[in-house]
Amino acid sequence: MESIYQTLMQLPLFQGVSRAKLLELIEKIRFHFLKYEDGEKIASRSDACTHLKFLLSGSIRCEMNTYDGKVKLSQILHAPDIIAPDHLFGRSTTYPANYYAVGQIGMMQIDKSTFMTLMQDEPIFMINLLNILSRRSQKNKECLMSMGTGDLRERLAHWILILTSRNATNIRINARQRDLYSYFGVQRTALLNTLAEMKQEKIIDYTVNEVSILDRSALRDILLEDIEFIKE
Amino acid sequence: MESIYQTLMQLPLFQGVSRAKLLELIEKIRFHFLKYEDGEKIASRSDACTHLKFLLSGSIRCEMNTYDGKVKLSQILHAPDIIAPDHLFGRSTTYPANYYAVGQIGMMQIDKSTFMTLMQDEPIFMINLLNILSRRSQKNKECLMSMGTGDLRERLAHWILILTSRNATNIRINARQRDLYSYFGVQRTALLNTLAEMKQEKIIDYTVNEVSILDRSALRDILLEDIEFIKE
Repeated sequence: MESIYQTLMQLPLFQGVSRAKLLELIEKIRFHFLKYEDGEKIASRSDACTHLKFLLSGSIRCEMNTYDGKVKLSQILHAPDIIAPDHLFGRSTTYPANYYAVGQIGMMQIDKSTFMTLMQDEPIFMINLLNILSRRSQKNKECLMSMGTGDLRERLAHWILILTSRNATNIRINARQRDLYSYFGVQRTALLNTLAEMKQEKIIDYTVNEVSILDRSALRDILLEDIEFIKE
Repeated sequence: MESIYQTLMQLPLFQGVSRAKLLELIEKIRFHFLKYEDGEKIASRSDACTHLKFLLSGSIRCEMNTYDGKVKLSQILHAPDIIAPDHLFGRSTTYPANYYAVGQIGMMQIDKSTFMTLMQDEPIFMINLLNILSRRSQKNKECLMSMGTGDLRERLAHWILILTSRNATNIRINARQRDLYSYFGVQRTALLNTLAEMKQEKIIDYTVNEVSILDRSALRDILLEDIEFIKE
């Protein structure tokens, strides 16, 4: 229990919840604890999102595609994390991506109606979730308004920052080069020049079918260097 | 009271609230009713967002700028509407825009702590706000993943759809042409060709310093025509 407490307290959703309160809740509430083996699927894109799923130990590979299937984005999420907290409510209450265990992992889940009761009984959870969701909306507008040149560097930065998690690693874009420059609306030479520049700055690396992000935090600096307020 | 009820019930935040419950709340809770004259400022960008503000009658002009000040976006919001519900919580609890009365308008506001009490006592408000905020986050990801060609049409559509309200009218972008093509990362001829095409399709009109959106709903069709799920 002590280690679960330590883990959960690192999540923004549990900010301000006391140790005593959390231990009481873990006793009282129907949390489900699950284990997955390496490569096992945890959720599929368009599965109904009926539970709030917490990653307690290990890592998860998250894979999403553009709707035409031509550009794939993958990232590794690390414990502790919450899977798609912005898909439990709203119109699209389905997962936006496929999620797979990387090695053996431990998860905890709570069904939506139990979580709603929890938010009523303990408003700190409601406030924390409202903060998380509001921040996503704000961050997105800030990214858009902070663009200065609209070039590929900025658009790539915006795309990655919005679609990946702050602590994600191994962020990779897989696409044929022609699909990639078409998706970002630039010419082939513009794509190759930008990728070469960003590689030299050690922000990305790339091969013919893959772009890997080496330094996600450097992407934030690309969106107008003088704005400090795009924090996550 | 009856007319306030009729007005508020059109807002997603009040969905599922019974007439009796709402009349009871209006009696019980410290709602403030305010009137503004034509041109009066309702809130300034970076003012603290300490209240949830409802537009009950009339219209509001909302103006925002890119951070470098070169591109201005304005829109007219119509009653009933809520001003920036995604800025009451989260890191940026300040208004993202300037808001001005258009003609005489009627507003109602409720301070944040009273609204938090309301969400605890009446969970329907909590669920409605969670739905609104989650939908914004989902819509944004859907817009990004639905891009197919990444061309200026798509980027303009994404930009307008994310930064303006569904029922907004008189949506205008004001910028020098060179700042506009620079902001969207295209060449001057590409900008002019796209604007001319979109004008012919009656989606926009434009002059040398202004682009006005004539048909916001047509922008949704631009982001991959076959996805029906970008609904707001």
